[in-house]
Amino acid sequence: MRRLSTQDQNFKQAFADLLAFETVNDPELLKTVDQIIADVRQHGDAHVLKLTQQFDRHPAHQFSELELTQEQLKAAFEGLSSEVREALELAANRVREFHQAQKQDGWTYVDALGNTLGQKVTPLDRVGIYVPGGLASYPSSVLMNAVPAHVAGVPEIIMVVPAPNGDLNPLVLAAAYLAGVHRVFTIGGAQAVAALAYGTETIPSVDKITGPGNRFVAAAKRAVFGQVGIDMIAGPSEILVYAEGQNNAEWLAMDLLSQAEHDTVAQAVFITPDAELLDQVVQWIEKHLEALPKAEIARTSIENRGALVLVKDRAEGAELINQVAPEHLMLCLDQAQEMAEDIRHAGAIFMGRYTPEAIGDYCAGPNHVLPTSGTARFSSPLGVYDFQKRSSLIMCSEDGVKTLAKTADTLAQQENLDAHARSARYRYQ
Amino acid sequence: MRRLSTQDQNFKQAFADLLAFETVNDPELLKTVDQIIADVRQHGDAHVLKLTQQFDRHPAHQFSELELTQEQLKAAFEGLSSEVREALELAANRVREFHQAQKQDGWTYVDALGNTLGQKVTPLDRVGIYVPGGLASYPSSVLMNAVPAHVAGVPEIIMVVPAPNGDLNPLVLAAAYLAGVHRVFTIGGAQAVAALAYGTETIPSVDKITGPGNRFVAAAKRAVFGQVGIDMIAGPSEILVYAEGQNNAEWLAMDLLSQAEHDTVAQAVFITPDAELLDQVVQWIEKHLEALPKAEIARTSIENRGALVLVKDRAEGAELINQVAPEHLMLCLDQAQEMAEDIRHAGAIFMGRYTPEAIGDYCAGPNHVLPTSGTARFSSPLGVYDFQKRSSLIMCSEDGVKTLAKTADTLAQQENLDAHARSARYRYQ
Repeated sequence: MRRLSTQDQNFKQAFADLLAFETVNDPELLKTVDQIIADVRQHGDAHVLKLTQQFDRHPAHQFSELELTQEQLKAAFEGLSSEVREALELAANRVREFHQAQKQDGWTYVDALGNTLGQKVTPLDRVGIYVPGGLASYPSSVLMNAVPAHVAGVPEIIMVVPAPNGDLNPLVLAAAYLAGVHRVFTIGGAQAVAALAYGTETIPSVDKITGPGNRFVAAAKRAVFGQVGIDMIAGPSEILVYAEGQNNAEWLAMDLLSQAEHDTVAQAVFITPDAELLDQVVQWIEKHLEALPKAEIARTSIENRGALVLVKDRAEGAELINQVAPEHLMLCLDQAQEMAEDIRHAGAIFMGRYTPEAIGDYCAGPNHVLPTSGTARFSSPLGVYDFQKRSSLIMCSEDGVKTLAKTADTLAQQENLDAHARSARYRYQ
Repeated sequence: MRRLSTQDQNFKQAFADLLAFETVNDPELLKTVDQIIADVRQHGDAHVLKLTQQFDRHPAHQFSELELTQEQLKAAFEGLSSEVREALELAANRVREFHQAQKQDGWTYVDALGNTLGQKVTPLDRVGIYVPGGLASYPSSVLMNAVPAHVAGVPEIIMVVPAPNGDLNPLVLAAAYLAGVHRVFTIGGAQAVAALAYGTETIPSVDKITGPGNRFVAAAKRAVFGQVGIDMIAGPSEILVYAEGQNNAEWLAMDLLSQAEHDTVAQAVFITPDAELLDQVVQWIEKHLEALPKAEIARTSIENRGALVLVKDRAEGAELINQVAPEHLMLCLDQAQEMAEDIRHAGAIFMGRYTPEAIGDYCAGPNHVLPTSGTARFSSPLGVYDFQKRSSLIMCSEDGVKTLAKTADTLAQQENLDAHARSARYRYQ
């Protein structure tokens, strides 16, 4: 595992190298995806069915077999053990409670001239949620995508989830039931994204598509961006743990591994001004790796993309954190809230020693869909605001418009836009 | 000019055809833009200077000649006639006042278990604003992009504006001065976008790029999306005017033309249940076109993309408006505010007979950068929220974490994420 110190001569470059991660656009992949989109636009249901039979080895003979009923979702929920059902309910309720605080309302005011100005806020009409199938089929992702849409008031939430060989994770269906998903189609890949973006005979076109997926899904989302809205294209998961003072190295090591186990290209970074704690964390990582089921993935991630960084002090730590703009940030120190004030860029900030990142993945309340690869510099966690949009409102009075119309007339003339100027002039002359 | 009635047998198809407008991605253009970006990343200032000399015929010999000083901006402002200066100041003040109402603050709450949850809101560190040069060099665009960034608290706003043959519009510089732009470079095209996204020796890399541009600029923004944030890629300008009751057809015709004069592919649509008013508007459009300096552009736009639509009643009008999701919507009737309640999708809604769209372009207060081509279905006007982003805040107490950690443990086991489960388990066992 890479060890760095800000006192190293080449630290700046080594740290920049650590953060460098560029996804390469594979032109062959883009061509394949463009073709799938074109074919789905032309042939609709039939082509989606064909690709689902081919890629997912789904046993359906007709398109209608690819839609689940609300009864099926409910049955999946009722079939859960009471322990799991209660855990899922607690998670859904907490995610709902947190997201309700994000809901935005419109407003208006009357200016000094007597004109009314404002902002109207409305939910999207219809959204599509992509849920991966197979191994990465996570019920928590269903909650994190569907609940904010539901809280925003989206009247129609359509979920797609591929069912390889026709198999589905009942927990995913149970989560869809809890989150208020309206329709579920067992399709996936670029064909599902194309169907959601453009619609088919059976699947209505949506206004926005959110949710994670493999590289075909990511490429398809990029391709339909503009036709519909999309959330960010997610990169590998990341965690940055900053610790000082009294800390349990055993816990911190497991917190770092909880991201490393996601993916061989996931990134776990530990920063501390305490050289002794750093050594202890390294030892615990080694010890934990001996017992973890996903040790192989986690070890590759830790070795290739992980790092332990020794800093001079807390201020230097905060500076490095802002440079990274990590997806997940844990601040494990007594003054966590104070230090958080100096953090400008992070997807989610977990403060104190009793706030492991893992609770944020499931049930703390905030969303687990977070900006990766440094994009927290300019973007936000998925939220209710992603499923609402705004319209400006302007209503001038016969008198109140005069000053504005005269100003618009003057400026439009400067821009050589004569019809603009005249249209304004009518209202004050 | 196309006339439609909802009573026509083929109305649905004809209306869909009217709205169809697909921008084609030119693979040659994309290749050129990708090459420019790669060269700017590799050669920095030198390549930007070279392309600026070549494409803009700019007389600069050194890169430093491409940066303007704050004194130059101030001098441009002070050189304006008092009429124009006051108009620009009134516009800037009104835009600032409206956008201040959009500024968002963070919040926290303590849940029933004693855990603190919240959302931190921070401005972006540095943003780039693209302002087109030459004919479409509009001071109003400078205000509409820079003021929201300034209100958001962005500490560094960098503007780029090409100066063909070294010429600049002094009003654009004056607007930059008024809006609080920090640095200005007289560069443009894909090379300016690449320089802002990746930085050069002189130009620092920004976190987000906003502002309109030609197809090279649009393609470059699309290409750097992910490395930096971008606003929407704007399509042609659109206006939809709905009128009924007492109205001045002469005014309405000019309102429609005020968008048509922008661009031959701009779209002006008139909807009314009043056949007589429709006829009058057609006649006035013809009359106005005889006198407008930009008549040729406006006529092409009106003939190719314009339409007059006769509807049965107001409800049918509202339904069509929601289908269009227009960039600009004028509701010219006594019950404008009531009708606005039924509008779900529009960039900006201008209500009543004394609210011409043109005042929204300059000085009403709301932003004139609005979602086009039906994207108001899922996106919003440019605003302060585009220059702020959020971080989730989570801080559990030693006691409060127990329920959450147990829940996370249960759900993580279901997802086969063992390190997640263990990291949670430490906190409650």
